[in-house]
Amino acid sequence: MTVSPDWIAVDWGTSNLRVWAMRSDGAVLDTAVTDQGMSTLAPDQFETALATTTAQWDCAKGISVTACGMVGSKQGWVEAPYAFVPCKPQANMVQAANAKEFDVQIIGGVAQKSPSDVMRGEETQIAGFLALNPDFDGIVCLPGTHTKWVHISAGEIVSFQTFLTGELFALLSETSVLRHSVDDGWDEDVFLETITDTISRPESLAARLFSIRATGLLANVPRGTARSQLSALLIGAELAAAKPYWLGQNVAVIGAKAVANCYRLALQAQGVPVIETDADRMTLQGLITAHTARKEA
Amino acid sequence: MTVSPDWIAVDWGTSNLRVWAMRSDGAVLDTAVTDQGMSTLAPDQFETALATTTAQWDCAKGISVTACGMVGSKQGWVEAPYAFVPCKPQANMVQAANAKEFDVQIIGGVAQKSPSDVMRGEETQIAGFLALNPDFDGIVCLPGTHTKWVHISAGEIVSFQTFLTGELFALLSETSVLRHSVDDGWDEDVFLETITDTISRPESLAARLFSIRATGLLANVPRGTARSQLSALLIGAELAAAKPYWLGQNVAVIGAKAVANCYRLALQAQGVPVIETDADRMTLQGLITAHTARKEA
Repeated sequence: MTVSPDWIAVDWGTSNLRVWAMRSDGAVLDTAVTDQGMSTLAPDQFETALATTTAQWDCAKGISVTACGMVGSKQGWVEAPYAFVPCKPQANMVQAANAKEFDVQIIGGVAQKSPSDVMRGEETQIAGFLALNPDFDGIVCLPGTHTKWVHISAGEIVSFQTFLTGELFALLSETSVLRHSVDDGWDEDVFLETITDTISRPESLAARLFSIRATGLLANVPRGTARSQLSALLIGAELAAAKPYWLGQNVAVIGAKAVANCYRLALQAQGVPVIETDADRMTLQGLITAHTARKEA
Repeated sequence: MTVSPDWIAVDWGTSNLRVWAMRSDGAVLDTAVTDQGMSTLAPDQFETALATTTAQWDCAKGISVTACGMVGSKQGWVEAPYAFVPCKPQANMVQAANAKEFDVQIIGGVAQKSPSDVMRGEETQIAGFLALNPDFDGIVCLPGTHTKWVHISAGEIVSFQTFLTGELFALLSETSVLRHSVDDGWDEDVFLETITDTISRPESLAARLFSIRATGLLANVPRGTARSQLSALLIGAELAAAKPYWLGQNVAVIGAKAVANCYRLALQAQGVPVIETDADRMTLQGLITAHTARKEA
């Protein structure tokens, strides 16, 4: 049976394009992912990529599309400018005027002047989280390639800070000399020990990276030790720097299961109460929120 | 005129092979470099690589060769075991028993049990430095891909610590999202400001990496700012962690000119007296020292 969506929700990142066939009541009829991310496309190739990815559905001409992510960056389909904090998470929406087959609305990112910071995509996860938790005041942590710590008050983003932790972990574990030491095992006790030590002495990060390699050269190291230590050094250094965000606060962690779990464990070990929620679910909820706001506007 | 060396000095690293045609009084007759580093060779290919690289010289069969670097690692020509601290820098020398045309002696590295650490190649630079400065007591800093801080007392290596700073700088400036922001300019004032701030607050490293990128997205940043900030964040975090090494000490910096200059500036800004010496010169001097010791043995 062919799927006939009422509208299409789109999460268009640097590397991937994800689409959902939506019914107007918010039900998901179907979903698809391709690797046609923003970085693989020239500005005039976005509409074709969207048409190809949704070709299996029976879409009316001019169907409503709501999209978030790098599709709205300077190198994307149409630039959706940043809104500056303090602001609602989805303060800016831009029409893709050059779209022919679709009626495309792109959600703009959020920026901060001092200290300089930007997000694009995470604002939609935050909007989704706030739609489900309208009275939430506190901190949202979104771990990923570029982890964000976000202070939320009265439904607005007050301030935020980004850490390169996920990208550093990938570079160090896959490309640096540490790749010889990092296997795919995991040791939660090693992780928690190293986290606590690094939070109290953030200079541990610089001091202990090479020793992961040297220990492996001089002794037999149990499987999982190197990965757990590296992860804890990087997340620990981040938590030390992000302390003004989480100390004495409620923290909601929005992320993919494995990495969100690391942050939850690390924060709970510092006595911080943590709510953990799924990133993909929050993205979809945020797209529904933006679509609803657009229809009501 | 064909060069007829009395012996051959060899610095054989992971990526490069450097040879010097030496006279027995220590004079250099000629030198050559190729990209036949350890990582490109199987164990039975080292002698051929050495023969090819020295083919332009008139070498006697069985000519004496003294080599340092990764050529002595487990993946090298012959494994030259680590000597453990406290020890003289060139405590272990191993004969390459399988060599046919050359009489090859390989200098072993130095290791430390706790905290785990290793060096291979730097011990020869240290030996060279001590040959020229026999009464030196203090700290030797060898900046590079893997920067070493070494405590020297009474001609021995007492302890040392390695930092991944150079490799991190390369990964972050060439491969991470920061590559879009880092140009090839340099701003010494930005470097010194950021160094001092990072030494006193080592959590700055984690906190400020992404802001290099965000600042570039939101404002026009002068040429050289991003590179100088990134360098200072990484070296500053290293100096914070290496403080027990340099605080109140004399420091000799042995490195390539550009990077040694960064460390000298950073240390002098903390009031530390610094001697700066050239890494290649110390390597050669250390090879001469090892060759002399071998002849006298």
